[in-house]
Order: sequence, then structure tokens, then C-alpha cells
Amino acid sequence: MKKILLTILIIGMTAIDSLAQLTEEQISQKVDSVMQTMTLTDKVGEMTQLAIDMVSTPGAEPDELNEESLRNVLLNYRVGSILNVAGHAYTLDEWHSVIRQIQDMAIDEKPTGIPVIYGIDSVHGANYTMGSTLFPQQIGMAATWNTDLIREGSRISAYETRASWIPWNFSPVLDIGRNPEWPRFWETFGEDVHLASKMGEAMVEGFQGDDVSSPYRVAATAKHFLGYSLPASGHDRTVAWIPDIQLREHILPPFEAVFDAGVHTVMINSGEVNGIPVHANEEILTGLLRDELGFKGIAVSDWADIIYLHDRHKITKDYKESIKVAINAGVDMSMVPLDLEFPRLLKELVEEGEVPMSRINESVERILRVKFLLGLFDQAYHPDIDYSKFASNEHQQASYQTAVESITLLKNEAEILPLSKEANVLVTGPTAHSLIYLNGGWSRTWQGDDPQYDTPGKKTILDAIRDEIGENNVNYAEGTSIDEEIDIDVVVQAARESDVAVIAIGEATYTEMPGDLSDMHLPEAQRELVKQVAATGTPIVLVMVEGRPRIINDIVPEADGIVMAYLPAHEGGRAIADILFGDQNPSGHLPFTYPSDSNDIVPYDHNYTDEVGPLGFNPEWEFGTGLSYTSYDYSNLTVSKATFGADDELEISVDITNSGEMAGKDVVQLYVSDLVASITPPVKRLRGFEKVNLEPGETQTVRFSITADDLAFVGRDNEWITEEGEFKIQIEDLEQNIIFQK
Amino acid sequence: MKKILLTILIIGMTAIDSLAQLTEEQISQKVDSVMQTMTLTDKVGEMTQLAIDMVSTPGAEPDELNEESLRNVLLNYRVGSILNVAGHAYTLDEWHSVIRQIQDMAIDEKPTGIPVIYGIDSVHGANYTMGSTLFPQQIGMAATWNTDLIREGSRISAYETRASWIPWNFSPVLDIGRNPEWPRFWETFGEDVHLASKMGEAMVEGFQGDDVSSPYRVAATAKHFLGYSLPASGHDRTVAWIPDIQLREHILPPFEAVFDAGVHTVMINSGEVNGIPVHANEEILTGLLRDELGFKGIAVSDWADIIYLHDRHKITKDYKESIKVAINAGVDMSMVPLDLEFPRLLKELVEEGEVPMSRINESVERILRVKFLLGLFDQAYHPDIDYSKFASNEHQQASYQTAVESITLLKNEAEILPLSKEANVLVTGPTAHSLIYLNGGWSRTWQGDDPQYDTPGKKTILDAIRDEIGENNVNYAEGTSIDEEIDIDVVVQAARESDVAVIAIGEATYTEMPGDLSDMHLPEAQRELVKQVAATGTPIVLVMVEGRPRIINDIVPEADGIVMAYLPAHEGGRAIADILFGDQNPSGHLPFTYPSDSNDIVPYDHNYTDEVGPLGFNPEWEFGTGLSYTSYDYSNLTVSKATFGADDELEISVDITNSGEMAGKDVVQLYVSDLVASITPPVKRLRGFEKVNLEPGETQTVRFSITADDLAFVGRDNEWITEEGEFKIQIEDLEQNIIFQK
Repeated sequence: MKKILLTILIIGMTAIDSLAQLTEEQISQKVDSVMQTMTLTDKVGEMTQLAIDMVSTPGAEPDELNEESLRNVLLNYRVGSILNVAGHAYTLDEWHSVIRQIQDMAIDEKPTGIPVIYGIDSVHGANYTMGSTLFPQQIGMAATWNTDLIREGSRISAYETRASWIPWNFSPVLDIGRNPEWPRFWETFGEDVHLASKMGEAMVEGFQGDDVSSPYRVAATAKHFLGYSLPASGHDRTVAWIPDIQLREHILPPFEAVFDAGVHTVMINSGEVNGIPVHANEEILTGLLRDELGFKGIAVSDWADIIYLHDRHKITKDYKESIKVAINAGVDMSMVPLDLEFPRLLKELVEEGEVPMSRINESVERILRVKFLLGLFDQAYHPDIDYSKFASNEHQQASYQTAVESITLLKNEAEILPLSKEANVLVTGPTAHSLIYLNGGWSRTWQGDDPQYDTPGKKTILDAIRDEIGENNVNYAEGTSIDEEIDIDVVVQAARESDVAVIAIGEATYTEMPGDLSDMHLPEAQRELVKQVAATGTPIVLVMVEGRPRIINDIVPEADGIVMAYLPAHEGGRAIADILFGDQNPSGHLPFTYPSDSNDIVPYDHNYTDEVGPLGFNPEWEFGTGLSYTSYDYSNLTVSKATFGADDELEISVDITNSGEMAGKDVVQLYVSDLVASITPPVKRLRGFEKVNLEPGETQTVRFSITADDLAFVGRDNEWITEEGEFKIQIEDLEQNIIFQK
Repeated sequence: MKKILLTILIIGMTAIDSLAQLTEEQISQKVDSVMQTMTLTDKVGEMTQLAIDMVSTPGAEPDELNEESLRNVLLNYRVGSILNVAGHAYTLDEWHSVIRQIQDMAIDEKPTGIPVIYGIDSVHGANYTMGSTLFPQQIGMAATWNTDLIREGSRISAYETRASWIPWNFSPVLDIGRNPEWPRFWETFGEDVHLASKMGEAMVEGFQGDDVSSPYRVAATAKHFLGYSLPASGHDRTVAWIPDIQLREHILPPFEAVFDAGVHTVMINSGEVNGIPVHANEEILTGLLRDELGFKGIAVSDWADIIYLHDRHKITKDYKESIKVAINAGVDMSMVPLDLEFPRLLKELVEEGEVPMSRINESVERILRVKFLLGLFDQAYHPDIDYSKFASNEHQQASYQTAVESITLLKNEAEILPLSKEANVLVTGPTAHSLIYLNGGWSRTWQGDDPQYDTPGKKTILDAIRDEIGENNVNYAEGTSIDEEIDIDVVVQAARESDVAVIAIGEATYTEMPGDLSDMHLPEAQRELVKQVAATGTPIVLVMVEGRPRIINDIVPEADGIVMAYLPAHEGGRAIADILFGDQNPSGHLPFTYPSDSNDIVPYDHNYTDEVGPLGFNPEWEFGTGLSYTSYDYSNLTVSKATFGADDELEISVDITNSGEMAGKDVVQLYVSDLVASITPPVKRLRGFEKVNLEPGETQTVRFSITADDLAFVGRDNEWITEEGEFKIQIEDLEQNIIFQK
């Protein structure tokens, strides 16, 4: 009976879907028929992605494309994809004009009439469209531990990106942030593979929806495949050593999760792993990605990375050999991005038999498939659609809520927080009165460092505090820039006359190589500011606006309250003020281990040996930490079976009670430990989490269901395995041991 | 004719050798005949190594062994090996008494009469024998780039160790020092695989000689096999990730070099590599070590490492399973060291069929073979031998010369060095007046931190400077301890009245886990001392007494002269003074890259990508750096062939001229770069070096001979390969490109 119902349901869904969305078979037929019209020039052009600069007019308005260049690129070279902005974000109108020019020429004048697929980095909202809703960066998204919020935020990002008539988004980053020295750490979901998998899934669902041909959705990109985030030196795009077992255990799972969620494209890691640049690694790009994982979408290179096989990695003798190696390894599309040699040389290579035609056809089919999936052949842009929710209050409110739920309370001595709205508050520090620092990189410009593109009306932390308690109650002096003293003496004087000092510290904006760092310590000027204010005896609340955990062990003891804001974007000022003054109850939890010193970088799921020495495992704050203005009690941890087998589901439940006096949200975190394993086991691993909302006095029961697969690890033969024996189940300070028998 | 002579010579040598030394065949026969007398108890006892504490009397004199314990250990458990000291170094007489008691009982009362093999860490001289000659630690030995000195020093260390009647030395360390955070960095030969291979070879030759049965030689130990030195966190004995290609390229070669040199034992890495504790890694301990490399000697565990398979690594459920896993993986002898469960449980495992008898026999044969090689069956100790050169002037002079040739001049602005002997010199800093800091760890005690064991009459830096220029010309104030200010104001006052300030900075003594470090910066108190002295305007010479490169970028500009002394041991004070005042010309060269900041740790043989970002490759000082009081000119780089093949030898020569006015030694360093390779090539690799002594005006021609094998790298299939193409040969600033064609 049940089965019949399900069948009807599936038939019904298929029927409804087919109205909007083509089946794989239909797409395949359409791709085949387009393929038959294509010359080799058409095909290598499809595999070519150029930067918009190649068809722009330098110094002119963004939408004043150079028609001659565009004609050359599209009609002579048959280029299939364009990306990025020339310099800075465009307005919606500018985007519409740019896309219209490109698509009209492509469709109307190219012999094949294949539309262009335009790609953009909308990594935290449609950040390259002026005035769009900006969301907290990924590290903050992860700190919410709330997949619903992230799914909804990504739906909004997709909406605003598609409102710009752009159908392809180079997001999310699924690299694991286990090296906080790395300048793209904040673009990750932090150090845990389970949290990153769930967040990545939600983000891809939000971008792509059920039907990516919808004019409100975009194709997502799983990046960077594979092993980008762990450069040994901490510098971007440098050498990484990642053994196979650890690659599968710590790096691959979030990618597998979004492949299951149907992500349509991947972007390839620019770096070299174990001496092999990934753009030249057939084992990863074909063996793993295609043959093993069955990925059907587009694999696009990162910026100029085929060129770099020669210029930086020195594994080929010239550009032409680089193209041969990369395409044969499995790259479908080259983000060239600034020359026309790529299609010319690739064509030569095919004609010379150095790249087989089958490789070309395979890649072009993948590219065309995604263009069909996106509906670009039907309608390459949507002048008819009303995108009036772009940057609407509803959208801004979603960003605000994400910021609120990301902000993480790390210290609250003598309950200094929330602050009284009657207090006389000193606000100081380099990040107190800046929108660019709240936004971080990839905000209107690549580095996000130009305040001329700030969205009017957005509030800095200082603005929001003034709104909250009135200008008369607020003293402000900058104190320091990011790394230089400005007027610490003025700050100290003001501190003496204030009830509390809110010191907003942190980092300048950066991403990629410009964010490379010599020293993990917070710059000395800022630490000096905190110390001198502390010397006045005025209580201190630190607000940290930073993309990676800078070392602050010498000022932590000086602060009564510490609030981690990550890069909360331009609703962050309001969110921070609302938390400082108790309008909101903090519920963010660290998605990484905050190290106590620059030589003590050890993740939470370290092995037991990492706890042995005199330093032990002694982070400033542990992964998962997050305080609240209320208190939560955990009780009644129950596990359905003391001994279980390969086919069993374990039901785990726990009661959580809000035992304080303010409503709040807590994150129930389920950890599992394999007590003995043939690969040295981590002390614990996150295997489930749920964010719950509790009124004062309310109790909820939270349930998790896990199987033997959730206890598995990657064994000596690189396969996932669950070994018999004892496991520890842990939620908060409650523990229970169970036995797994095959 | 030549061939006949050679044959006669070989026959002659064999004849002479056979008088002293048994052939492998003779040994094999002797081992077999002993094996036949042995019970299982005898055999598992042979595989057991206990600490001397197990037979000592706590609180008593070192040589007052507990006879009952000794009897139990030797006669009931048939223990085959003992190691270490109980607490601190013994006198020669104490050693003789200890060894005599042990060997007499083993030989006279054990049923098999098998002598014990006593092992010790003589890592820089016979450091566990009171009054012995201490040599600079390995990192300083490497800085000499003089293999003759190291071979001679090791001969002396062997002499003084055997003078203590100990035949087995747990030295040298062949781990590559590529992570300067690691607390055993100074126990390595630094970051380069070629330099470490040559140094390791010389050290093994010095220890073992041609005939290790000589009463002046000891069996050496290649440690730690394999992959110990690269813990990700920098903390000792923590998790390391080392892919196979990099393991073979950067870690294995020094071990291969000493296997070729005939080293008789290896000690196993305590750590876990890629999730597998090496003590449980059959692939490394049997597949690589035995089957592939053909090593015939003893593989001994490190301290308690079989126990740790359960207690720390959690890969086994109890001690017994740990023993099973380790012995089956290929461990021959367990450095237990403090219980008698090991032989008992191992016996049970054999009886239960969990460990095959063949594994036991194999290990026991290896152990007995080394005991025969050492001549222990003939004479287990040597009361008849005159060891009167122990700690002789000749031996001390060898240590002094090693220190002199290790000390590395890094900065000499306006030729501040050498100092005038007429100058009024301020001496200050925490390492200026200490012998323990000069000696470092493994000096009389494990941590080397107890000055009560200092050898009388040895000179600190301060003592030696006073000797050099007279007490009246020397001011001294301590300034700081290693990490606390003491009397910087006194120092500043003295600086104002002095012509120059010699500030001896650096580290306290440590080794292994107690040396784990949170922050690479030199402690702030010391940097403050330098800054305050600099503020007086008095010129500064820094002397660095440190085992690893602590970060000093903020004080480098304040110093006019900088001298790196490493851990030069107790002739180091004299050596430093002689260099400061020009009695000796410095000739040491850095065996590692001195990083400029804690997040800029990149070795010299990095890949090109490591130079790309805004920080670039920007060390404080490069690998191979070392200034002199004279100048050297390089010219006439010639390479015998512009194009060469697989069977060719390339002859490379270069002229070096001492163009200054003082005799001196320079290190001619030959680097090779593979311009394009299928594994991303390093920017350069050292492939030859020679230290030459030049009088003023003298020119010498230095010749190197290399083959295609010297240009090889480890390829994608883990095999060494030389690829066709262009290579760059580089000596100093001279370069020449050559082409390799197969």
C-alpha cells in the first residue's frame, strides 16, 4: 500500500517537474544535436572562459563593452563563458546591459547560437552587484550551525545574482579550514568535515533549488577540488602535503556531500598537492572525480591555472604543453582568463593528436548540459522577471538574522554582558567604525577594501551602538588603525570617564595571496590599545572582526567580555549592537579551534598524541564553544542499543532545558569517539548537531539517528571501514559507551 | 697489471681483517650455534631492553646495583640489553663497575652465557660519562660542512663511550630538520638531505670504523626510522603527514646513505605518520627497511613506544596486543624500558600462535649478530685497554675545532668584527655566562639543565672573553634570564661606558617534549635587552646560543654583528671568543633556512610556488649563508659537457680565490636545478660541497663529478627518475645550463 502511494507520488512529481525542467535524456538529445553542428573551433571556444576585461573598454562605464573585442571573442573564437567584473561591482542596470550585449551577439550571430554562461563569485550575497544584500562570510555562516538560515541566505544570494542575469556562481568553498594561517580561512566553513558537509549541502540547495532553470536560481560550484586549504607555509597557493588517507578523511567528504546534493560544477584547486599541481592530476580530476564519484558537471580551472602549470609549477615546458596536460587530466573549461592563445593552442593540440577528440567532446557535452539545465538556450536572460525583492528589507533581514546567529560569545566574566543601555560607553578600535572591515574580501571589489562602494545607510558598530543607546552615552576615539597607533592617549582618557569600553579589534580586508601573513599575532598596536585601556580599570568588552583567529593570549585576561563577530557583513554592526545590549541572545558557536599561540595550531579532532606533551591541547577556545545570556542543562542521554550491528540504526536522544531567564538557541552537538582503531583515532568527531530554540524553563528532546557508517573512518587501504569495538557517544558532558559488533 | 695489484691488495686486506674481525659466514655459524641452545624464554629476553633503573638502587651510588633485581632480570628473564643512566652521568669508574657486574653475571650465570649489549645516547661525545669531551650538537656539526671533522669527532666519541665499556651508541639522528619549531631540531643535521647524508655517513664511519669489534669503536644507530621530524604542530611525537613521494625525496636518503655505510642498528620513530604509528607499520619496518633496503641490523624501539601503541596512539586494546602488532610489524628489540611484562607477554603470544616463531628467531639472530660483530662474546668489556686519551687535550682540541668551524657569521656591518682586543667590551645576555646553555640537552642529564655536572675548568663566553682581552676591559651584567628581565638598567648604564656590547642571547636547554614551544619568537625580555642597549648607540654584536632559529626580525636591524653559535658545547666559549677577536676566521654556514617570521617557515629547496605571494621567499638568512673575515671570489665555472647522457659523468670545476688578507675556509656549494619536471621541481638542490682552506691570495680549483643519478627526483610512481631536459648548475653566483638526453 505504502509502495503504491510512493510510486504515484513519484510519477506525479515527474509529471510536474517535466513541465519546467528537462529530463537528463531530453538534455542529452539536445546536447547531441547541438554537438553535431559544432566545428572544432566551436568546441575549443566552448571550453574557453575569459574575464570581462577582454571585452571591456578600460576607463569607460562597465557596460560600455568593446564591440570589436566582443565580436572577435564570440564570433572568431566562439568563446563559451565569461566571468568576473572589471575592477568593481556593477549596478543591476549595468549587469543587464552587459549580459544583454553578450548573449544577444552569442545567440544571434554565432553560427551555433550557443548562449554564453556567465560566471561570478557571489560568495556572500551577490557581492559584485552594487547595493545587493551581503551576507556574513562562510566562516560566520558556519558559526550559526543553522542550515535553514544558510539555505535561505543562499536562495537570496541566488535570487540577487540571477537578478543580475548571471546564472553561475563560484560558491561555496568546501575546503576545510584547518590551517588558520591561510588567508582564505574565512571563506571556509571551518575545520570540521561534518559541519562543512551540512553547510555545503544547504548552500548548494539554496543556490540551485529543485530546478536550476528557474530564473531565481544559479548553478553552484564546489571549490576547490581538491586539497587547497592546507598549504604547509600557510601562504596561499603554495605546497601542500596531504596523504591519501587524510585526504579522504578530512578533505573529500564535503565535496561528496554536495555531489549528492547535485552541484553542477566544480572549480579546481590552484595548488600542488604532494608535488603534483591538481590541474595536472588525472588521478584526482578523472580517476576520483569522474570514475569513482561519478560527477557529471563542469570542472573549471581557477584563474590562469593552466598558464601557471608552466609559469609557477614548472611541470611543463610551455603554455601549449600545459594545455595538453590539463585537458588530458580532465579540465573541462579553462578560466584563461586574459588571452586568446588557449583556444588556438588547444585546437592545434587536437589537430596534432596530442589531445584526443574524445576528451574535447566529453568536456563540451558537460558544458552544454549545464547550459541546458540552466535554461540558457530557452532564455539567456530574463527582462520579463520582476526582481523587486533585490536588496529588500526581507533579504536584509535574513542577512541580519544570519549575523545574529553567527556572533559567538567567548567570554562573559561576571556577566558583564549584556550591557546596560543606561551605561556610558566608550567605543574604540580600528574595526569600530568601518563597513569594509565588517564585509571582508569579495565585497564590491576583489579585496573588498574600497569604502567608496559601501552601501549607503548601513551601520558600523559605532553607528549601531549610537542608535541603540543614544549619541550622548557614547564616546568614540579610533585608538589605532589595524597596525598603527593613532590616539591611544585620547582613548585612555575617555576610558577613565566611561562605564565600559567596547574595543573592536581585528583584521583589514583581504583574500587570497594579498592576505598572506607573517605572524599570527594580532598586530601589536591593537594589543597595546587593549592593555592601556585595561590599565584604567574600566571593564572591557572586545569585539573581534576578523577572518581568522589572530593570537591574542596576552589580552584575553584583560577583557571581561569577548564577542567573536567573524566577518558579519553590513548588517553586522546592528547585530553586534543588539547582542551587546541584550536585544538578541548570542547563539553562535566556533566552527574552528581558536589557538592560544602561533605554534599551537591543533584542530579539535586531533589524535591522542597531540595531547601528550607539556603544552598539551590547550587552545584559547575549543571548537564548538559559544556562550549565551541564558543557561542550558543537558540530561537523559539515552542510546537505543548498548550493542549494535551493521544494519542497526542507533537512536540517540537527549533533553535540553533552558534553565535561565531569557529565550535562546543552543546547538546540541553529538560527538563520537572510536576508542581503538587501526588508524590512530581522533579524540572525538562531530557526527550530528541541531540548533534548538528554547523559552525560559522549556525542555526539548533532541533525537539523532546514526548507523555504523557514521562511525566509520578511512582505513589503511583508503576505504571507509567501521571496526568492531567500543565507541563513546558524547553530548555536552554526558557520555555513554556502546559496542559495535558486525 | 693494475688489476692484479688490486686483487693482491684485497686478499691481503682480507687476511689481516680476519685476524680481528669475523666474516659474515663465521658470525652466521656462531649465531646458529647459540640459537640452538636458546629456549623461548632466552629468546624473548634477548629482545628485551630495560633501563638501568630496573637494576639500580634508588638514592644509592650509580654503581651500587641491586643484585637481586639484576639477578631476576638476567637470570629469570634473560634480558639481552640494558640502557641509559639513572638520573645523570656516571664516572668512568662507576661505568666500569656497572658494566662489570652486569656482564659478569650475564656471561657466568645465564644458561646461555650471552653477554648484554649496553646502549647509551652518546649524541655529542660520551655525554653520559662525567668529564668526557663534549662536542657541538649535530646542528653545529652540520654547520661545519666538514665531514673530516665530524668523522674524527665521532671516532673520539666512540673512543670515550667504549672507554666507559659501552659498545652501542644511539646516534646519529638522520631525521631532516625542516620544521624548526620541533624541539629536537638541533639534534638533526638541518634541512638538507644531501648535507645530512654526508654528515651521517661520516658520523657512522667515525663511530664504527672499519672494525666495530675494536675496543675503540661502537655500533651506531640510524634514528629515527622513519618520518619523525615533521610533526604538523611542531610538538614532539605528534601527528605527521608525509606523502610517499616526499618521504622518499626528503626523508629517506640519509638513512640509505648510512645503510650503505654499514650502520648496525636503527631506532624506530616514536611518532605516527599518516595515521599509522611507525612501531606498528609493517610496510615501513619490514617492506621498506628489510625487503627493499636489505638492512640486516637491529631495529630497536624508542622509549616505551610499544606501550604507547595502546596508551597514546590507541591502535590496540591493551599492552599485549601492542606487543603483537609491533613484533609482527618488524621490531627486533623493545626499549621497554621499565617493566618485565614485555618478555612475559611476548612469550605468551608466541605460545598462543599470535606471533610466529620465525619472527622471534629472525630478531634474535639479528641481535646476536651485532653482539658478535662487537666482539662481546670474546670480551664484553676491556679492563686491559688503556683509555688514557679520554678527555685528553687532543680530544678537547677536536671539539674546539669543530666549534670554531661551526660558528656562523651572519651579519658584519661596517666590519665591526673582529673586535679589537683593546676595546672596552660589555658582555651581557642570558647565555653569556653559562656552560649548560652552550652544551644543550643530552649533557650529563637528559635535559642537560643541571650546572652541578659542568666539567671544571671549562670556559663560558664571558670567561673566554676575559681570558682574551683581560678582565679590566670587560664589563658584565646578566641583563635577563632566558625569559625574564633581571637588570637591564645596569646593562644600559654599562653600555654607555663601553665601546661595544656583546649580547649573548638564545635558549635554555631542552630536548624532546620538554622543549615544545608555543611561540617561535625569542622571548621578549631578551629582545627588549637588545633594543635598550641599541638605544644607547653603542655598537652591538649578538651571539646566538640556540638550538633552533628563534624569530628575531625586530632586533636584527639593531645589531652590527651577528654570530650564530648553535649549541657549541663546552669548548664553545673559547671558540666564540677567538672568533669575536679574530684569532679564528669564521667558516660555518647555516645548515637550515633561518626564517624571518613564525609564519614564514619555508626551506631553501622549496618549489617555485613558494616564491609567488607578496611575502615571497624572504628568510632572515638563507641556507648555506656564512660570512668570513676575508673575501672569496669564484670564477671559471666549467662543466665538461653541454649535453650528457645516462652513462656520462659530468666534471664540474670552479676556481675559488681568497681575495682578502686573512687565511680562511669557505664552503664551495654545488646546486642543481631541474628546470622542468613532472613532479614540481624545487628551485635548487644541493648536490655537492667541499670545504677548502685558502691562504690570502691563494686560488684552488674545486672539482665535482656528478651523474644523471644526482639529478634524479622521486617521480609519481615513487621511483627515482631523471627526466630529459635542461638543468642549471650553480656555484655561488656562477651558473651554467646543461641538457640531459637519455
